[in-house]
Amino acid sequence: MIITIGREFGSGGREFGRRLAEELSIAYYDSEILTEIAKRTSLSENYIKEIIEKKPYASYPIHIGRSLHPMASPIQEQTNIIYQEQSETIKELAKKSDCVIVGRCADYILRDEKPFRIFVYADMEHKVQRCKSRAPENENLTEKGLITKIKSIDKNRKKYYDFYTGNDWGDRSNYDLCINTSTMPIKLYAKIIAEMIRAL
Amino acid sequence: MIITIGREFGSGGREFGRRLAEELSIAYYDSEILTEIAKRTSLSENYIKEIIEKKPYASYPIHIGRSLHPMASPIQEQTNIIYQEQSETIKELAKKSDCVIVGRCADYILRDEKPFRIFVYADMEHKVQRCKSRAPENENLTEKGLITKIKSIDKNRKKYYDFYTGNDWGDRSNYDLCINTSTMPIKLYAKIIAEMIRAL
Repeated sequence: MIITIGREFGSGGREFGRRLAEELSIAYYDSEILTEIAKRTSLSENYIKEIIEKKPYASYPIHIGRSLHPMASPIQEQTNIIYQEQSETIKELAKKSDCVIVGRCADYILRDEKPFRIFVYADMEHKVQRCKSRAPENENLTEKGLITKIKSIDKNRKKYYDFYTGNDWGDRSNYDLCINTSTMPIKLYAKIIAEMIRAL
Repeated sequence: MIITIGREFGSGGREFGRRLAEELSIAYYDSEILTEIAKRTSLSENYIKEIIEKKPYASYPIHIGRSLHPMASPIQEQTNIIYQEQSETIKELAKKSDCVIVGRCADYILRDEKPFRIFVYADMEHKVQRCKSRAPENENLTEKGLITKIKSIDKNRKKYYDFYTGNDWGDRSNYDLCINTSTMPIKLYAKIIAEMIRAL
């Protein structure tokens, strides 16, 4: 039983994933994956996070024949190396035991294992409220600033996902279930979906 | 408690809606709406179905000031009249009692009532299988023919929905929950989602 979770920033996807794993008593992986890649590559976790969340520079999909683009930049090469390490780490984790994996293209990387693929999203108003209530003390963003931040993070997630998978991030056809956390409590969703997965 | 269901053709959205209504012991409306419009307009049910599913001719959204388009065709006018009747019928039904309403832009028409909006979809392979197993005896479509039919019906649903709502049919942001019936039995989905809605 492997469950992957894609999520919009601020939608509570991580909380949902953690709760779902708890309900099912299975492993939960999120930042653990970064730690593992850091170990393997001797890059810092923060740097890897930066690369994964913010810097897939190239504008052409990785699937296009490399011969047309022989001059990939050093940063692009490093992004690719991190993606490779990430893929291997995720495959190894998925082999070890049943688990919930949040983000990191896991739905695509594990496609041969037929994971149950969930996408978590929410209305902007809801995401802003959630971000406000969880903001670090030193973050003093206005509502407008928060919306810009949320949009920008999701834009980068989409860029990264689309680049490495050739699929369309957040498009329903890539998922088994898409849940909007604006109208239904995350806790209830986790309980019910765990029940459904157990019933299969 | 009002639940609206949008659905891709062949995904089992109607079966899901019916089962959900049964689980919740509330009213279920689908073709009943056509019957009601037929009564009110003295048009035949088949003709109305044709108009709703196949013929929103105009290529500009209805929201755009009509003064720019004073020459709406007679068929477009009739489509608009049917949409108006449909809106009123749906609003009246929703006032009468808790219910599940399938299709017909009900999520948008009832937006002020804050319905729980579900979209049901499936992989093409799954939809083809479902259509094959339910095809009328006199329908002898090849697999390719079936795919063309499925795509064409959904294209028209999208055209109709987008035209009258100004929203994007099937886009997750318009729904509270999007379920892919390829990987999870419809019966199980109906049971679990009914439980969730009852728990609210």
